[in-house]
Amino acid sequence: MAYKDVLRKIVDDNTTKKGKIFDNVVQILIFISLTAYAIETLPNISPLTQSILFWIETVCIILFTIEYIIRIYIAKNPFKYIFSFYGIIDFLAIFPFFLTATYDLMALRAFRIFRIFRAFKLIRYNKALNRFEIVWKLIREEVILFLIVTGIFIFLASAGIYYFENAAQPDKFTSIFHGGWWAIVTLTTVGYGDVYPITVGGKIFTFFMLMVGVGIVTIPAGLVASALTKARQIEDEALLENEKSKKEVET
Amino acid sequence: MAYKDVLRKIVDDNTTKKGKIFDNVVQILIFISLTAYAIETLPNISPLTQSILFWIETVCIILFTIEYIIRIYIAKNPFKYIFSFYGIIDFLAIFPFFLTATYDLMALRAFRIFRIFRAFKLIRYNKALNRFEIVWKLIREEVILFLIVTGIFIFLASAGIYYFENAAQPDKFTSIFHGGWWAIVTLTTVGYGDVYPITVGGKIFTFFMLMVGVGIVTIPAGLVASALTKARQIEDEALLENEKSKKEVET
Amino acid sequence: MAYKDVLRKIVDDNTTKKGKIFDNVVQILIFISLTAYAIETLPNISPLTQSILFWIETVCIILFTIEYIIRIYIAKNPFKYIFSFYGIIDFLAIFPFFLTATYDLMALRAFRIFRIFRAFKLIRYNKALNRFEIVWKLIREEVILFLIVTGIFIFLASAGIYYFENAAQPDKFTSIFHGGWWAIVTLTTVGYGDVYPITVGGKIFTFFMLMVGVGIVTIPAGLVASALTKARQIEDEALLENEKSKKEVET
Amino acid sequence: MAYKDVLRKIVDDNTTKKGKIFDNVVQILIFISLTAYAIETLPNISPLTQSILFWIETVCIILFTIEYIIRIYIAKNPFKYIFSFYGIIDFLAIFPFFLTATYDLMALRAFRIFRIFRAFKLIRYNKALNRFEIVWKLIREEVILFLIVTGIFIFLASAGIYYFENAAQPDKFTSIFHGGWWAIVTLTTVGYGDVYPITVGGKIFTFFMLMVGVGIVTIPAGLVASALTKARQIEDEALLENEKSKKEVET
Repeated sequence: MAYKDVLRKIVDDNTTKKGKIFDNVVQILIFISLTAYAIETLPNISPLTQSILFWIETVCIILFTIEYIIRIYIAKNPFKYIFSFYGIIDFLAIFPFFLTATYDLMALRAFRIFRIFRAFKLIRYNKALNRFEIVWKLIREEVILFLIVTGIFIFLASAGIYYFENAAQPDKFTSIFHGGWWAIVTLTTVGYGDVYPITVGGKIFTFFMLMVGVGIVTIPAGLVASALTKARQIEDEALLENEKSKKEVET
Repeated sequence: MAYKDVLRKIVDDNTTKKGKIFDNVVQILIFISLTAYAIETLPNISPLTQSILFWIETVCIILFTIEYIIRIYIAKNPFKYIFSFYGIIDFLAIFPFFLTATYDLMALRAFRIFRIFRAFKLIRYNKALNRFEIVWKLIREEVILFLIVTGIFIFLASAGIYYFENAAQPDKFTSIFHGGWWAIVTLTTVGYGDVYPITVGGKIFTFFMLMVGVGIVTIPAGLVASALTKARQIEDEALLENEKSKKEVET
Repeated sequence: MAYKDVLRKIVDDNTTKKGKIFDNVVQILIFISLTAYAIETLPNISPLTQSILFWIETVCIILFTIEYIIRIYIAKNPFKYIFSFYGIIDFLAIFPFFLTATYDLMALRAFRIFRIFRAFKLIRYNKALNRFEIVWKLIREEVILFLIVTGIFIFLASAGIYYFENAAQPDKFTSIFHGGWWAIVTLTTVGYGDVYPITVGGKIFTFFMLMVGVGIVTIPAGLVASALTKARQIEDEALLENEKSKKEVET
Repeated sequence: MAYKDVLRKIVDDNTTKKGKIFDNVVQILIFISLTAYAIETLPNISPLTQSILFWIETVCIILFTIEYIIRIYIAKNPFKYIFSFYGIIDFLAIFPFFLTATYDLMALRAFRIFRIFRAFKLIRYNKALNRFEIVWKLIREEVILFLIVTGIFIFLASAGIYYFENAAQPDKFTSIFHGGWWAIVTLTTVGYGDVYPITVGGKIFTFFMLMVGVGIVTIPAGLVASALTKARQIEDEALLENEKSKKEVET
């Protein structure tokens, strides 16, 4: 039982020295594993590189599996861990390998895409997310409202450009959905240049959409900025309160 | 009369349980209706899909018409409702269907575009717009000033690029209005790539326009951010005032 | 002399009713004149349109000339007005017409470009610029620093991309100046698509430049936002001070 | 020794009149030198221009070398200066010239790129960086967190678009790394137009990536804005404290 506690300190507690080393090792492993995954998609890989990639993958899988088993072993409630967000992520990070290793079927190869879920394993190690959580709570309602308004705005832009450009460019503005692709690419100011209005009406319409749209796009920046200012204030006040109560105790 | 009150509670009051269900049903209907509208613009729709779309549209229209009639019926002043913003939107959402159903003329088909006004019906259900209203009041003057300054700036950019690029690309920078299209697409940083300067003078001009222009584009973001910070402060102070007066009452 | 005062009230004072009408008339004239100027650049204008444009221009010039003479007449120090910012703008708005009307030489036609300076006349009528002046004073130093840092950054990006891409695209990245065009278009996120890296090195370099560059671009937005927040605070404090002193007077 | 002090006042102290002149001269030299460097990369330079550039470069090098020697001479600890950040920058600014002048080998020409490090010499003269340092300290943690989250996000976007577009455009979305180029160009809203999704799945995926991505891009703006607001507050409080303690001393 004491052995279990020692393990728990290493795996779960990232304030001890050993815990930090464990965390860093896992993070490096995730990084190597994701890099190998990306390299595998390159065309014309030499057989040598392929075998190196295979060995990297195998070693990573073994270590992730050990990590997964340890995490089940040390969990106070193993089932709770297994069906938790991180439990599922940890499982999906190793599951496709065993599946494709056992049954080498083409259909199963699609499961390899689950390997990208390993990227989510990285989030576990960020404890600085605290302020962003406060910010999120402060702006949640406005963000949802913003998304609804943006949704309506994109729909109107899509339908509008369809009416202006459909006759002139029937192959590019074939339907409102095609107009939607234009609306997204334009209102986010990406502007690939694959679709753009060529009629005078469409250009004037784009002008007004952009005038309003650029204003809408600045709203999240404003929201985040004002909420971060507020979050800082909340933290400062909490600090002040703390110091006050300390002084009172001292007196 | 009591029946009228019950209906009013369902249709107008979104705090009761039944009112919430009614609101959600109408919102889903609007969403379905807009989706059907977008799908109709797709080319090569099968006759089956066409008839499904027709039935969806008919059902939506019937329900919207019932909603419209109920809203007139329960209104304390029916004429006030009919000529209110939402009254007109509700009417425009059903009107084109009846028109095209009665007289099947090509000329009337243009009225179908009014169906996109249904998107505005969605706004009615957002009660969280409050903070944005405070923000709007705080920044209205600056936004108008910003639009005037932007307008002057776009005009100067349009005229400038016309002088620099007209000789080199007479087909793309044919007039100041053509330069205006370039100015909008460039200063909003969309940059489709359909028009861009090719002369050295035009490129240097673009450099200076962008240096100033990117600064101008950040002003709305700054305005919204600072106004949101102020709006939060106003709300906090109102809350404090409230608590104070409550305490005073208690004493 | 009394007549001079009446004129002064109409032309200089925009708080009186007549002053407001005068201001609005001049603004509409400026707008019409700029629109006519833009239309003139359109190709294939009919002789009728040309003569209409000529008459609009003539009428505008006559009225602007009258305005200019009145402004000299009512000025307490005419020379001071003539050589002030607005005095020069007012002169440049009418000067090219008289020059080209007297000597009809091709060489003088270039002076017609001065007509775009009429756009600056519009700025006179905006009294709401006050807050932006406070903001400008608050952030002037940082803006200058920002421009220097941006300048260095653009130079490094230009030189860097030149080294990466010159060999692969000698016609597009011919010199550091050509690289500069790429740097401006990319770092402002316009991205026309006329020049972009194609080598692996150039793409990785672009990645790092964009990571830093997008951060740099957000600095002005942050500056404006924080300065606007501060400007609001200053105004609020001034208001509070005012109210306090009023109360003290009352007691 | 007194002579050394005089020199030190000129070279190191930019509050005296002579110190300011020295600083400005060096800054102009750096600017001229960088301009000459950029002009050299232009194709088809005439022999005359080439010799002018050579003389400019030689004069700049001589003056920078004198500056370097003076700085070593006046330094209290010469070795500390030589291996300091600015010491290395000063050395790299002159080193390539002497190297290529001595051994005229093609291989050594690559060292000429070090001349761009002269741009860093300019930073020494900006004393207004103070507020940005406070800001940097306030947001360092969040910036690092932001970079990690962005990194994960870019990876997921790269892998995702690879799966959607690889089959349709195998030459453009050849591997996850190619997808990465798309992800960077799209999420920073540059949008060159060299790579973009053409499948329906890829376009819908782009929509969701942009919706989240534009939100992520606004976070640094929000961070900088809120930190600048905080930095102003810190400065104001420090000023108030100062005034308070002064008043207390006076009493």
